[in-house]
Amino acid sequence: MGVSYSYQMKVPFDMSDVRGRIKLPQLILLSLQVSGMQSLDLGVSDRRLLEEYGLVWIVTDYAIEIQRLPVFDEEIIIETEARSHNRLFCYRSFTIRTKEGQVLVEMLATFVLMNQASRKVEAVLPDIVAPYQSQASKKIYRGPKYPAEIKGDTATFAVRFYDLDLNGHVNNSKYLDWVFEALGTDFLLQHTPTQIDLKYVKEVRGEGNILSLVERDACLSKHQIRSEDGLHAQAIVKWRKEEENEV
Amino acid sequence: MGVSYSYQMKVPFDMSDVRGRIKLPQLILLSLQVSGMQSLDLGVSDRRLLEEYGLVWIVTDYAIEIQRLPVFDEEIIIETEARSHNRLFCYRSFTIRTKEGQVLVEMLATFVLMNQASRKVEAVLPDIVAPYQSQASKKIYRGPKYPAEIKGDTATFAVRFYDLDLNGHVNNSKYLDWVFEALGTDFLLQHTPTQIDLKYVKEVRGEGNILSLVERDACLSKHQIRSEDGLHAQAIVKWRKEEENEV
Repeated sequence: MGVSYSYQMKVPFDMSDVRGRIKLPQLILLSLQVSGMQSLDLGVSDRRLLEEYGLVWIVTDYAIEIQRLPVFDEEIIIETEARSHNRLFCYRSFTIRTKEGQVLVEMLATFVLMNQASRKVEAVLPDIVAPYQSQASKKIYRGPKYPAEIKGDTATFAVRFYDLDLNGHVNNSKYLDWVFEALGTDFLLQHTPTQIDLKYVKEVRGEGNILSLVERDACLSKHQIRSEDGLHAQAIVKWRKEEENEV
Repeated sequence: MGVSYSYQMKVPFDMSDVRGRIKLPQLILLSLQVSGMQSLDLGVSDRRLLEEYGLVWIVTDYAIEIQRLPVFDEEIIIETEARSHNRLFCYRSFTIRTKEGQVLVEMLATFVLMNQASRKVEAVLPDIVAPYQSQASKKIYRGPKYPAEIKGDTATFAVRFYDLDLNGHVNNSKYLDWVFEALGTDFLLQHTPTQIDLKYVKEVRGEGNILSLVERDACLSKHQIRSEDGLHAQAIVKWRKEEENEV
């Protein structure tokens, strides 16, 4: 078991969607900030990682289970812990709870260390993971089998100037925007996600158009994020239809 | 002079653009949060305003002067103060400073009170503005003269599900996204805004396409945000071309 780190906050207005629930892309962004706070706290900040080792943390996979999405002004606690690592991958859990301890959302994120100059993945350095007391384990997380091809609709999004972050690529959290927005407002108003698997394949750099492909039935949607450079990300989302009185 | 309220913070990664400068739409959002904190602090929170009076604060105009944009990880202080009000309008200043007191950005925002049910502007209630110690004054802020017509390029943006906030309309800060993104990445990489005037005309509700019209020369751009419902916002932005070594 790794060292646990918690952050308590109220869901702010600008993180809430039209129904008052937290926007999932924002929840992912927030979780990354909380793990960044833990790194700072443990003396292995993102800044030190970059300056001393030339490395940055990159998320490759998310597995997310949603019991209920936190709502506007709700007090929540985000707890995170570096659970285990092998030669290349580090696994970190995020648990979002109510003040009373009820689990709302659980996320497992897979991280790798990327060399900022070469853009290549490097082996996990013991010095970097030691402060988290993450467990060395040969166990490798295997996500779901993503379909090779998507037969359905395609939505097109231009990469925006403000989508790019300081690393010069599109921030991780934006992919989920493209995944969700491809389903359209009507669907998003009538459904709520219960499980999300997301795999990042290749970063999106600079300008151009993004194609968000979606194939769906009543309670399952499969997604690819593509550009003229090929496949950037894949996702599978399970949905629950809203009851009338929930909307 | 009104009661002043300050908030100190570091510019986080997700608020920084590809050059490491704070994203202006995010700075506007953040400033609104800081004025929201002051309201809470003074016992006239947005929630109380809605529950007791059925009213919400709406921004109608921004006048923004930029000396330098705060950068990633920089410690900044946001100071806000309700300066004066007349029968319909409340004027609030925001000053963003470095820790050493250097002024980076100054904003003057015009607020009105809107009845949430009727969507109509209501007269300023003395009980609501009293805690801010805002000065009653007949002086009315007049923004610049915006052109009736824009002769230039048009960029089209779909209104996204996540653009909508809890009030069911597109959040104020998104308009500046549409204004800026219409200029394209190349222009935004080579120029920095020094002055922004922004006028909100009519809220954007629900789905559909937004047309972002722009007419520009080297150091000035004029904008309209339109939809099939007509004009939603107007803006005039002054720009400075970046020096080579700034980019």
